[in-house]
Amino acid sequence: MNAEIIAVGSELLLGQIVNTNAKFLSISLAEMGVNVFHHTVVGDNPQRLKKSIEIAEQRADLIIFTGGLGPTKDDLTKETIANHLGRRLVTDEAALNSIEAYFLKVNRQMTENNKKQALVLEGATVLPNEFGMAPGMFIHNQNHYYMLLPGPPFEMEPMFTKYGRRAILAKMDKREHIESRVLRFFGIGEAQLETEIESIIEGQSNPTVAPYASDGECTLRITAKHQSSEEALRMIDETERIIQERVGEFCYGYNETTLMMETVKKLKRSGLTIACAESLTAGMFAAEMASISGVSNILKGGVVCYSSEAKEKLVKVKKETLDKYGAVSKECAAELAENIRTILDTDIGISFTGVAGPDSLEGKEAGTIWIGIAVKNQPVKTFLLSLASNRNSNRLRTVKYGCHYLMRELESTSNKS
Amino acid sequence: MNAEIIAVGSELLLGQIVNTNAKFLSISLAEMGVNVFHHTVVGDNPQRLKKSIEIAEQRADLIIFTGGLGPTKDDLTKETIANHLGRRLVTDEAALNSIEAYFLKVNRQMTENNKKQALVLEGATVLPNEFGMAPGMFIHNQNHYYMLLPGPPFEMEPMFTKYGRRAILAKMDKREHIESRVLRFFGIGEAQLETEIESIIEGQSNPTVAPYASDGECTLRITAKHQSSEEALRMIDETERIIQERVGEFCYGYNETTLMMETVKKLKRSGLTIACAESLTAGMFAAEMASISGVSNILKGGVVCYSSEAKEKLVKVKKETLDKYGAVSKECAAELAENIRTILDTDIGISFTGVAGPDSLEGKEAGTIWIGIAVKNQPVKTFLLSLASNRNSNRLRTVKYGCHYLMRELESTSNKS
Repeated sequence: MNAEIIAVGSELLLGQIVNTNAKFLSISLAEMGVNVFHHTVVGDNPQRLKKSIEIAEQRADLIIFTGGLGPTKDDLTKETIANHLGRRLVTDEAALNSIEAYFLKVNRQMTENNKKQALVLEGATVLPNEFGMAPGMFIHNQNHYYMLLPGPPFEMEPMFTKYGRRAILAKMDKREHIESRVLRFFGIGEAQLETEIESIIEGQSNPTVAPYASDGECTLRITAKHQSSEEALRMIDETERIIQERVGEFCYGYNETTLMMETVKKLKRSGLTIACAESLTAGMFAAEMASISGVSNILKGGVVCYSSEAKEKLVKVKKETLDKYGAVSKECAAELAENIRTILDTDIGISFTGVAGPDSLEGKEAGTIWIGIAVKNQPVKTFLLSLASNRNSNRLRTVKYGCHYLMRELESTSNKS
Repeated sequence: MNAEIIAVGSELLLGQIVNTNAKFLSISLAEMGVNVFHHTVVGDNPQRLKKSIEIAEQRADLIIFTGGLGPTKDDLTKETIANHLGRRLVTDEAALNSIEAYFLKVNRQMTENNKKQALVLEGATVLPNEFGMAPGMFIHNQNHYYMLLPGPPFEMEPMFTKYGRRAILAKMDKREHIESRVLRFFGIGEAQLETEIESIIEGQSNPTVAPYASDGECTLRITAKHQSSEEALRMIDETERIIQERVGEFCYGYNETTLMMETVKKLKRSGLTIACAESLTAGMFAAEMASISGVSNILKGGVVCYSSEAKEKLVKVKKETLDKYGAVSKECAAELAENIRTILDTDIGISFTGVAGPDSLEGKEAGTIWIGIAVKNQPVKTFLLSLASNRNSNRLRTVKYGCHYLMRELESTSNKS
C-alpha cells in the first residue's frame, strides 16, 4: 500500500508552524509497512485542495489528511472531500454528545459553529477524538482510502495510534511483516556509536540498523521484514544482541521510553522515595517526574532554590558554604542533596546547581554544572558536567544526566544489597 | 509571483527529520511578497522528482528545491533538473576551488565524488555555499524560475538570506510588500473568538484575518499587501484596532511571545519578586519562568509540595486545613500562596494545587484545579479551573492560567497605585 500525506493549513504555508504531523505519520506508516512517496502541504483553499486530492489519487492508494477539521469558516477539509467524493455530511451523534459534554465540563458557552465539528462524511468510520472535539474519519471510495485527522498533534497522534493505525492495518494484505525496535542510548555520541557498530550497519540489509541523534540522545532503529512476524522479531533479537555486546552499557531503554520513565520505573521497583533541590533546573526535574502518572508514592517534593536566600531558608545550606565555595560548587550540591533528603525524610535526595548561561557566574563558565545524589546511609556523591549548548538545552540535558547518574546509583545500590 | 517549495529526500518521507526548511523559506518568501501555495516532499527518486517538477510547473512561477545536492549516489536533484530542462551540467571553477580549499583546511582527502558537487546547470547563476560544499543555483527557463538549495539548514539558510533572496527580488517587477502581525489570545475559545470578529474576517480580503488555535491559546494573523510597506502596516493597525475593541481583554501579546514572557516583562517593569508553591504543576511554573534569561532578580524560588508532608514541612500549611478541606481546595491554595510569599519574603506568592488526572482525588474530579495569588499587603485571591484535557495538557494549561491571572492582578495593582 502506498500513501500520501496531505497537510491542510495556510499557517504551514506562511511558515507559522512546522509540519511535524508528516514526520509522526511517516514513522508510523513505515513501521506498518506502508510506503510514503509524497508529502503535500496546501492552504485553506477548496480549489487548490481539490486539485491536490486529484493529484494524490494518481499516485497513492491511501491519502491521509491532517488539519482543517476545526469549527471555523476556513476549516474546510471535510467539506471539500465530501464535495469531491459526492458524499453528504451527516451529524455524528456520538461526536455531538461528546462536544456538548466538553462545553458543560469546562463551563464555557458552546457556539453554533462548534456543531459543525460533529459533521462526518456519510459512510465513514468515525475515529474518536479523545483530546479534542473534531472526530477523525476513514472511508473507502472506489480505488482509494481516505483518512481525515485533526491538525493539533496532541489530538492527531493518539487518534492515529489508537484508531487510525488499526483501521488501515485491517485493509492491508499482510504478506510481509515489518517489525522494528528502537534502542535508546545516553552518554555516547552519535559518531562514536556509529563507529562502534559500523560493521553491523554496513553488513546488513535485513534487518537494517539506522542511527539517529537528537537532544543529547542517540537511537538505533532495527527494522526487519519477514513473512512471519515471529521470525522478524527473532532477527531483531539477534541483531540487538550483537549491538548490546558492544555498546550495551549506554543503552537505557526501548522505543518511546524516556530516561525519566526508566528512572521512575527503577524507583518504583525498589520502593524508594525521592526529594529534589533544584537551582539551575528550577523545578524541571520534579515537573518532568510528575508528568508520569502515579508518581506520588515516589516523589515527596522539593525546592526551587533559585536564590541564595532560598538555598539557606528552604534547604538550610550553610552560609559559610555559599560564601566560601559559591552556589555552583561540589560542596553546595552535596549539601543541597543531603539536606533535602533529610528535610523530607526520603531515601534519595538529588540536587542541581550550575551556570545555565549565556553569562558566566561566580567566575564559572556557562555550562558548569554540579549534580548531587544522596542515598540514605551512604556518603553523598557529586558529578560535574561541562555542557556547551545554549541555556535551555543545558538545563534539559542536566535533567537527563540527573536520571542517568541516578539510575547508575540505583543499579549499584541494588547490586550491593 | 507564486512559489512552490519541493524538498527532496527519502529521510523526510521516512520521518527521520522534519521539513524545517519549508518553514524557513515560507517565512522569508511571505516577507518578500511571494505567495507560497504548495509544499511538496518527494524522495530520492528521479522519476517521481521529475513528475513533481511537472506538477509544480502547472501551478507556480518559482520552484525552490532543497536537498539532493550532496556527493553521494542518491543525491540527484540537479541531474534530474538538468535532464528535465535539457541543460548540461558543467564544472563551476569557483565552486571546485572552494571544495579543494575546504579539504586542505580540514586536512582530509578529497574523494572523486566530491568533484560532482562542483557541477552546476549550464546558464545558472551560482549561489555560493559559505558553510558547506554544494553550491546553490538559480536559473530562468521559459516561463519559470528554478532555485536549487542544499538540504542542511545551516548551509541553506545563510545561502538563501545572502544570495537567494536577492536573486529572486531582482526578478520581481513590482515589489508588493506583505506585512503580517500575529495577535495572541488566552481565555477565549477559537470558536467564540471567531464569532466575535466574524464580520471582520468575512468583510475583508486585504488585510486578511486568519484564526489559529493550539495548546489552549488562539491567535489571529492579520496580513496586508501593499506596494508601500508603511501603508500595509497602517492597514494592519486599523484592523487590529477594530479587533481590540471587541476582544482586546483577551489579547496578551504579539507574534512569537508567550504568556510567561509577558508575565516576566510585567514583573520586571514593576520591580516585583515572586515565589511559587507548586503541587499539581510540581515545578513547571518555576522551571518555565527560569527558562527566560535574566529572571534571577525576580524569581527567588519555591517549593514542589507534591505530598502533604511537603506542604506542611516546607510551606507550613496547617494540618487542620489539609484534614478539613483537603489538598485540592481554595483554603489550601490560599495558604500555600500566602505562606511561600512570607517564607521567601517576596512581593508575590503563587500556588497551584489540583487533580491532574487521569484518576480523581479526594472526591474531586480530574481537572479540578485551584490557583492562589498572594500580593503583599493585599488579601490573597484564589481561582478555580475545570480543565478537560489529559494529565500533562492540564498541567501545562494550569501554568498558562497562572500567568493569565497573575498578569490581571499586576494590572489591577498598578492601576490602583
